Amino acid sequence: MNNDPMEKIRKILDESEFIKMLGIEISELDDDHALGRMPFKSLYLNPYGSMHGGCLYSLADTVAGSLANSMGGNVMTVEGKLSFLEAAWDTQYVYCLARLRRCGSHLINVDVDITDDNKKLLDCGNFTFFRIENR
Amino acid sequence: MNNDPMEKIRKILDESEFIKMLGIEISELDDDHALGRMPFKSLYLNPYGSMHGGCLYSLADTVAGSLANSMGGNVMTVEGKLSFLEAAWDTQYVYCLARLRRCGSHLINVDVDITDDNKKLLDCGNFTFFRIENR
Amino acid sequence: MNNDPMEKIRKILDESEFIKMLGIEISELDDDHALGRMPFKSLYLNPYGSMHGGCLYSLADTVAGSLANSMGGNVMTVEGKLSFLEAAWDTQYVYCLARLRRCGSHLINVDVDITDDNKKLLDCGNFTFFRIENR
Amino acid sequence: MNNDPMEKIRKILDESEFIKMLGIEISELDDDHALGRMPFKSLYLNPYGSMHGGCLYSLADTVAGSLANSMGGNVMTVEGKLSFLEAAWDTQYVYCLARLRRCGSHLINVDVDITDDNKKLLDCGNFTFFRIENR
Repeated sequence: MNNDPMEKIRKILDESEFIKMLGIEISELDDDHALGRMPFKSLYLNPYGSMHGGCLYSLADTVAGSLANSMGGNVMTVEGKLSFLEAAWDTQYVYCLARLRRCGSHLINVDVDITDDNKKLLDCGNFTFFRIENR
Repeated sequence: MNNDPMEKIRKILDESEFIKMLGIEISELDDDHALGRMPFKSLYLNPYGSMHGGCLYSLADTVAGSLANSMGGNVMTVEGKLSFLEAAWDTQYVYCLARLRRCGSHLINVDVDITDDNKKLLDCGNFTFFRIENR
Repeated sequence: MNNDPMEKIRKILDESEFIKMLGIEISELDDDHALGRMPFKSLYLNPYGSMHGGCLYSLADTVAGSLANSMGGNVMTVEGKLSFLEAAWDTQYVYCLARLRRCGSHLINVDVDITDDNKKLLDCGNFTFFRIENR
Repeated sequence: MNNDPMEKIRKILDESEFIKMLGIEISELDDDHALGRMPFKSLYLNPYGSMHGGCLYSLADTVAGSLANSMGGNVMTVEGKLSFLEAAWDTQYVYCLARLRRCGSHLINVDVDITDDNKKLLDCGNFTFFRIENR
């Protein structure tokens, strides 16, 4: 039996073609935070040449959801708001840091910050997750 | 000279590989609403077998943004919140209806409802756009 | 035994000094919507002479929460976003229409529109509620 | 001529009966953050005996808005989402820390954390402000 949360999360993410297509990887996963990244590719651009908001939201939802999922049980996203502060371009990767704000028996709240190679803040957001099965 | 808003929007969307990859199409575009759809493909699934939240957010941002863009000038998304009410599966398309709630000289507010083939409500959200250039 | 939802809600609201101080009243309460209003008083103004955002949010949370509460059990607000479209002034009342978007066994989602005497849209928002006790 | 931002903000807040009625005070105001507090009074309670969400939102909007206003010009709240993590009771004050996430020429983004006397996190949120007049 293996209880390594990182292994559990990697197995889960590996089952989604969408997450693999976006190239999202989780590099850190802890009790209170997760860190992930997504490469900058021309495939992900909006009509203005910067990264599409839905692409950045996909990264945020995936990294925040990985953190929520690592708390035990299975979680679904209830809602999430993302604020687009600066356009994402001229960077090799975009990084998403997810921080746990509350972990209840049913409801989990997670903040996200998305930054570029130069640690410039691009987007910030907040997500609510619901734990379907108890631990 | 051509002022058809639908033609302007289709040209804009056609410049994004991401929007084309998701297969998002706009079918209605009016003074107060826009309607779009996205096919259900296994490529868009999350690890649980339903459509990834970021994929649905991409649809919402694109359809709401098309409506905002059709008001004149160029717009950028300031922020958007999406609530995930029901999982999207067992449908051929997901549809997004965007409704204009306010159109100011700088700020534009748009509501979105995402439904399936049976008109079941899957997601609802609200987006703020900022008009970069004046009309 | 009395199962009139309006009576239940009025009893609940009557226990809050804050709601009474704001003069919030519920006039309609149905399976899928609730309608409430709040008088415009100089006590509720922000430094710019229009109604304070927190005052409008209090109305929205109270009317949306009354609708959620009428679904059975007791509910708490998980989160709520309000968009401030037009300043509230020169009106005798502000009105809040809450519409049920989803009622699950645990999670309830409600949209709100706030309008003035002339039915002009002032604010729109969306709230998530969590049902603490089951029906 | 006086350019002290704290003095400007205190003068502005002093013009609102609502803010004075809630007893909101700003104690710190800097380039990147503001700190405020509100006393816990039975007048502010919801029907369940904890602080009404609209009351906490009023604190958040006021402290975040004070920070945004201190950046120059006059600002209006575009939208704000607050997540209610823990009920506010058994505390003498609730405290709101507002952090600047982005300050553009038109759009200002601010995060808020609300805590109790024991520094327990009660609520977190994010607000967008629009600068009406340029600096």
